[in-house]
Amino acid sequence: MAVNLKPPGTLHPVPGLRLGVAEAAIKKPGRKDLLLIELAAGSRVAGVFTRNAFAAAPVQLCRERLAAGGAMRAMLVNAGNANAATGNGGLDDARAATAAVAQALGCGAEQVLPFSTGVIGQRLPLQRMLDAVPRAVADLRGDAWQDAARAIMTTDTIPKGASRQLRTSQGTVTVTGIAKGVGMIYPDMATLLSYIATDARLTPEAVKECLRRAVEVSFNSVTVDGDTSTNDSCVLLATAQAGREDIGPQHADFAPVCEAVTAVCIELAQAIARDGEGATRFITIEVDGARSVEEARKVGYSIAHSPLVKTAMFAGDANWGRIVMAIGKAGVEGLDPRGVAVALDQVPLIERGEPHPSYREELGAAVVAKPEFSIRVSLGRGAAQARLWTCDFSYDYVKINAEYRT
Amino acid sequence: MAVNLKPPGTLHPVPGLRLGVAEAAIKKPGRKDLLLIELAAGSRVAGVFTRNAFAAAPVQLCRERLAAGGAMRAMLVNAGNANAATGNGGLDDARAATAAVAQALGCGAEQVLPFSTGVIGQRLPLQRMLDAVPRAVADLRGDAWQDAARAIMTTDTIPKGASRQLRTSQGTVTVTGIAKGVGMIYPDMATLLSYIATDARLTPEAVKECLRRAVEVSFNSVTVDGDTSTNDSCVLLATAQAGREDIGPQHADFAPVCEAVTAVCIELAQAIARDGEGATRFITIEVDGARSVEEARKVGYSIAHSPLVKTAMFAGDANWGRIVMAIGKAGVEGLDPRGVAVALDQVPLIERGEPHPSYREELGAAVVAKPEFSIRVSLGRGAAQARLWTCDFSYDYVKINAEYRT
Repeated sequence: MAVNLKPPGTLHPVPGLRLGVAEAAIKKPGRKDLLLIELAAGSRVAGVFTRNAFAAAPVQLCRERLAAGGAMRAMLVNAGNANAATGNGGLDDARAATAAVAQALGCGAEQVLPFSTGVIGQRLPLQRMLDAVPRAVADLRGDAWQDAARAIMTTDTIPKGASRQLRTSQGTVTVTGIAKGVGMIYPDMATLLSYIATDARLTPEAVKECLRRAVEVSFNSVTVDGDTSTNDSCVLLATAQAGREDIGPQHADFAPVCEAVTAVCIELAQAIARDGEGATRFITIEVDGARSVEEARKVGYSIAHSPLVKTAMFAGDANWGRIVMAIGKAGVEGLDPRGVAVALDQVPLIERGEPHPSYREELGAAVVAKPEFSIRVSLGRGAAQARLWTCDFSYDYVKINAEYRT
Repeated sequence: MAVNLKPPGTLHPVPGLRLGVAEAAIKKPGRKDLLLIELAAGSRVAGVFTRNAFAAAPVQLCRERLAAGGAMRAMLVNAGNANAATGNGGLDDARAATAAVAQALGCGAEQVLPFSTGVIGQRLPLQRMLDAVPRAVADLRGDAWQDAARAIMTTDTIPKGASRQLRTSQGTVTVTGIAKGVGMIYPDMATLLSYIATDARLTPEAVKECLRRAVEVSFNSVTVDGDTSTNDSCVLLATAQAGREDIGPQHADFAPVCEAVTAVCIELAQAIARDGEGATRFITIEVDGARSVEEARKVGYSIAHSPLVKTAMFAGDANWGRIVMAIGKAGVEGLDPRGVAVALDQVPLIERGEPHPSYREELGAAVVAKPEFSIRVSLGRGAAQARLWTCDFSYDYVKINAEYRT
């Protein structure tokens, strides 16, 4: 059902990074559900994580290990089980799994970051994971990004990856990333799971700053259902293999590298909405004329989360009354309806809070009949703007989520 | 599809109040879609209305007329058209319709309150409404509450009404109310449309206070889809026909009358969730151990609005991982998962943030297989609590809202 989404094209290897996959039969047998990412010595890593109070055990460990400031050497990712709401036992499981990786790679356990995605509230099948680690190690290759994108999928219908190469003052730099996630998607810091790697020689500070900038306009601007996962994690891995000079936030190469990372993140974030559970429409929401970016985002998310807007879009019904309702309920203090304009792509619906004189049902219907289009809102009270992406709400969303565990 | 909801039983007439219905063919012909409520001289009226910034024209007029403080004599209600996002033309239409009622009843137009519910963004069929007003006047009767409940329905499958009689120091007092609304239900001040009447001799101040108290624990504690209508309106009408003493907030009769009004409001609010669009489950959410009522309500609504929780309940799946996710994403500052407990009816799911040792899937499944049950959450950090009601999220919610206009 994904909307205008194809499997990833070429995913360029990133010098200094290898990937390996293995079958650990975490939820059920028959697929490679374990991913190991190995980083060269000297790599710099930054991560952003869910703000859900029930942060999963792996998220807690990632935070702790990144905060300690040591050099990271590997990430271990499993699909099929979120290791969330599993208490101290869940923390022990994540520690044991990363220790097994550390032993196999010859580094410290605190240099391995764990990630999990899947069902909440069940303990990991630890022994099967430990047994699979050596097979993942044996599989390590620089060109395994496609296999990696596939290994981390849960209800995703299509693997998600994006890649860019750019010239810098120090030669060619590669940025490649993968992501997964199509439901429980309203990331508060990042999406379910995403890994973006570059060989650029970004300083630790630059890695953090680049990730912060990229995530804000990508993963933090997408929603499927307004539900924030317990496991959202996004990491930027810089292997520092390209060139010789360190790239700090002031270096001339920082902006172009950061732009390439951002472009990869946006492509991945859009892929998540395009593959949103049950999606039949990919919708861009653009809000301008706001007093602050926060205000613009509040209005955008009020539209993007409205079940009534989303079901109308599924029906191909340009029911702008519901869009107006969603703008009005967003909680913008003192919003004057007479300043508000709404358009679907280039078709004006509302001007000064009233139906546009030129509007006819057929014009709106022609826009929402398309698989992808924009809802454009002007609040008429400031200069701030925001853009975000979402999908519609179909029978299949209900079907997928009513049947997920059964 | 309504859950354990029957048409209203006896709806006692309220002395001093008459109701009449008529067909105005507002959306389509073939049903009585216009309701007129006439109040005796000396009645006291209070209202609460939507906080949606795109408040409909009738809501704007109601606010203006109630704020002016005059004595109200009638309400004119139409289904089929919300008269929202209709600009100055919509205000003119509402003024003209209420002026016609005023002329027929021999009062001032500013003594008539207008209410509308239905499609947003279309002008009222004013002439057909004006033509129907004399027929509604001719139909005025004290015992027409059942017809009135039916006239204001839109996608409701069952009319909603409730009635109580109580003894006071001044004799028997009656409280009767009706409501409509099953979608776009997350009232910020009141539900779509609700009228509660009593013959108690409440003072104007007591009417306001009684309505405020009753609405907080009834209409402001129910949600179907988290979407706040442009037309939410709830009014309490006191005809002052019972007894001789005025009942202020300090009078001994105030508490029992207010309790009866609250009981009627709760019954109506529950009816709205029971008849929620596509509902197959009626769910009570109880949150305690919060630091404030606001915090308890925030957690309750986070669960009640989660599409993932709602679709799991539709599937009869006790997927408590999603309940935990919804608690965690509610944005409660510093919430410690280790203090959280969750139960389904009497079945403990989570204790100190971890699965309860006694929990087995069959126990939870048996609860959510029932058409009505409670989700009970203890936050373990305070003494405040809240209770609210919602329904599940089914294929039929999508169907109803994808097909509403077509």
